[in-house]
Amino acid sequence: MKHSLKIDGPCKIYLQENEMPEAWYNVRADMKKKPAPLLNPKTMKPISAEELSSVFCDELIRQELDENTAYFPIPEDIRTFYKMYRPSPLVRAYFLEQALETPAHIYYKFEGNNTSGSHKLNSAIAQAYYAKQQGLKGVTTETGAGQWGTALSMACAFFDLDCQVYMVKCSYEQKPFRREVMRTYGASVTPSPSDTTEVGRKILAEFPGTTGSLGCAISEAVESALKQDGYRYVLGSVLNQVLLHQTVIGLETQTALKKIGVKADIIIGCAGGGSNLGGLISPFVGEQLRGEANYRFIAVEPASCPSLTRGRYVYDFCDTGKVCPLSKMYTLGSGFMPASSHSGGLRYHGMSSVLSELYDQKVMEAVSVEQTSVFEAARLFARTEGILPAPESSHAIRVAIDEAMKCKENGESKNIVFGLTGTGYFDMVAYEKFNSGVMGDYIPTDEELEKAFAGLPKIDL
Amino acid sequence: MKHSLKIDGPCKIYLQENEMPEAWYNVRADMKKKPAPLLNPKTMKPISAEELSSVFCDELIRQELDENTAYFPIPEDIRTFYKMYRPSPLVRAYFLEQALETPAHIYYKFEGNNTSGSHKLNSAIAQAYYAKQQGLKGVTTETGAGQWGTALSMACAFFDLDCQVYMVKCSYEQKPFRREVMRTYGASVTPSPSDTTEVGRKILAEFPGTTGSLGCAISEAVESALKQDGYRYVLGSVLNQVLLHQTVIGLETQTALKKIGVKADIIIGCAGGGSNLGGLISPFVGEQLRGEANYRFIAVEPASCPSLTRGRYVYDFCDTGKVCPLSKMYTLGSGFMPASSHSGGLRYHGMSSVLSELYDQKVMEAVSVEQTSVFEAARLFARTEGILPAPESSHAIRVAIDEAMKCKENGESKNIVFGLTGTGYFDMVAYEKFNSGVMGDYIPTDEELEKAFAGLPKIDL
Repeated sequence: MKHSLKIDGPCKIYLQENEMPEAWYNVRADMKKKPAPLLNPKTMKPISAEELSSVFCDELIRQELDENTAYFPIPEDIRTFYKMYRPSPLVRAYFLEQALETPAHIYYKFEGNNTSGSHKLNSAIAQAYYAKQQGLKGVTTETGAGQWGTALSMACAFFDLDCQVYMVKCSYEQKPFRREVMRTYGASVTPSPSDTTEVGRKILAEFPGTTGSLGCAISEAVESALKQDGYRYVLGSVLNQVLLHQTVIGLETQTALKKIGVKADIIIGCAGGGSNLGGLISPFVGEQLRGEANYRFIAVEPASCPSLTRGRYVYDFCDTGKVCPLSKMYTLGSGFMPASSHSGGLRYHGMSSVLSELYDQKVMEAVSVEQTSVFEAARLFARTEGILPAPESSHAIRVAIDEAMKCKENGESKNIVFGLTGTGYFDMVAYEKFNSGVMGDYIPTDEELEKAFAGLPKIDL
Repeated sequence: MKHSLKIDGPCKIYLQENEMPEAWYNVRADMKKKPAPLLNPKTMKPISAEELSSVFCDELIRQELDENTAYFPIPEDIRTFYKMYRPSPLVRAYFLEQALETPAHIYYKFEGNNTSGSHKLNSAIAQAYYAKQQGLKGVTTETGAGQWGTALSMACAFFDLDCQVYMVKCSYEQKPFRREVMRTYGASVTPSPSDTTEVGRKILAEFPGTTGSLGCAISEAVESALKQDGYRYVLGSVLNQVLLHQTVIGLETQTALKKIGVKADIIIGCAGGGSNLGGLISPFVGEQLRGEANYRFIAVEPASCPSLTRGRYVYDFCDTGKVCPLSKMYTLGSGFMPASSHSGGLRYHGMSSVLSELYDQKVMEAVSVEQTSVFEAARLFARTEGILPAPESSHAIRVAIDEAMKCKENGESKNIVFGLTGTGYFDMVAYEKFNSGVMGDYIPTDEELEKAFAGLPKIDL
């Protein structure tokens, strides 16, 4: 028989429900140099809570702007909802290690065991809770790969809130079934760019035939929220509040590793807007900033949308329509239209300002990887670990494997931890292309990037 | 706020990996009146191990025919693989209970947290293991909803076995992405009936335009195995060996309930061929047969394919092409062509002989439910418990809800346990029909059934 694998501990480390974190962790509190503040697009000055209040829920604004409070208690109703699908397992990848014949120990925090198929639910339920608490009728949002939209529709169904989703057109077309999951939860779904908003009509006129982008869908969702009474806009990534909620991932990982007496050497996550990566690494970054431990943090992004590895660290608009506040971040320019890559969730032109600042301070590294090599890693992972990963998550798998192979070369037994953000059940169109050998890679040329950079706003603070 | 739910214990009861069962339980050992033996289709006499050996793997034949050994040890390699996705959680449905305002306590054993999306992997890995152990090159099989085929392709990838799947045509068309999951794991997939086998060609000639059935796909897979050197046929349901492997579900459930000190009153499962239901209830049936406890067992089947509630308890062919052994079972006749229902996995004309005998002995009850009421239950479950259930599994949800509502009427606080066999991510075509209000119900007429019964074999033992 092929398999005579010796498993010397549990494959899956589950916490008890009463070991789940009682507060989210705000890494900005431990950063000496804080991320730059958001700017009001009209005045180009730091934006106030009041100026944000027509777009965002009040409590979420408080979380967004607070850079000093280290811990925000998780409300009881949110903790109750979390128990529906959390704690998530930290899994020792014994089978993958065996296939690689690596001395490295590989662990992954698996966030895909819920119907949204990803970690997005962690913030969706928090945002829906605060919207309900404020007495709102509903929320609008955008979704890329569809995971955030699904998560938000689940959260809104739980709190009886109306949910209106603008879905990036290429995902809408590649993932028709995602729409039905959202409808099952009572949400309405519109492909973006659409003719239902001014900004959508403008983008359609300028780029007929565009397959859309997150930046564009954000603009439409914001416009739509502003036009409706009792509605606010909510966002699934990039923002400080989202990273805050997602720290439930990192905090659980921290507790689980402590429980089994393992110290991580390398922590890896895929990075689109940064919600998963930020949530996973924040508590460990906090340890490092406080001088308690040292880690290597690696952000993995697609070569087709390389905001960290090839972008500029400047103020930019968060959306294509330039209606949102500006953020200082690594960006390719809000006018950058990523190729119709299959990793819909990693197509954002910018990056969370917290992660941008950590990258700039060299606390965190970043690498970019190409799509076909990502799917090769995905297939190996599926066949060995028995989980069909989302293309987004597979970016992290790719680099975890690469690092494990370096360990093999050097005979090192490092502890590699990565975030497995979700499952690929709705990504079979992409898998089909890969299985049939017709998947391509795309890397923007320097000229394309320069053209996008030329559209960056000139800010004089 | 809507939710001020009091949760007085864990939502999810997880066993430790070392609490997983070390042996499968064979309920036939505790049955005084045993299920009737399989018959050789050529001689119409009880079939011998030798006669079965051209079709099935040797060790699986031994398990199939042994009605006296109560426990079969689970080989170490299978236990290792189980750790990849087991133990599965037993979940207290607090959120559903709250929505129903029922005093009943509802628990479900959730088998959907693996890439096959269902419990099928429990037997797939066992069957692949024994095939590999016997030195075979590969296996053939049929799949209805696609879950068994996916599970088998995962198991075969793990043991480097070739895997050839005949997929019921209506599922093949409704679930194109299932095919890609199987291909990702290296399997080949053929829609059935096909022109690659004699029996397929014959059925196509007789019923042009048929959307296929499990019985027909079985015939094709068996013929294909017999024609290839080093191949055997494996089956995902109905057989004693499959129910045996699936008892890992019931044994874990038994351990988990003991751990929390809960005695089940009603145990409910959906029934197609009987693999999930048999696996779930067997250990509890054993208790009851040994006089240690009393339970109500309820099999739930679709009104469109009501083998227990409207079938006959006679010897019948297991497949449409009549190449397989005959089994005494509740059946609608192997010529019965179920309507193109969406619950592809519950479209089998017959029923496991063990469950048929338990039903005949009145140890187990059965009810049939209609498709739209099943999807209503599925939607409520998705919105409250956060899991999008497979249509098959939702048959059990329907009856669990019905029983919980009876408890509400009578003010009884019963413990209801049901099997949630899988997730519905690949069933969005059906959900779309339901969401759009165009889903219909279909109940065969007495005349249709009489016509199918007329084709039953006349057996004189």
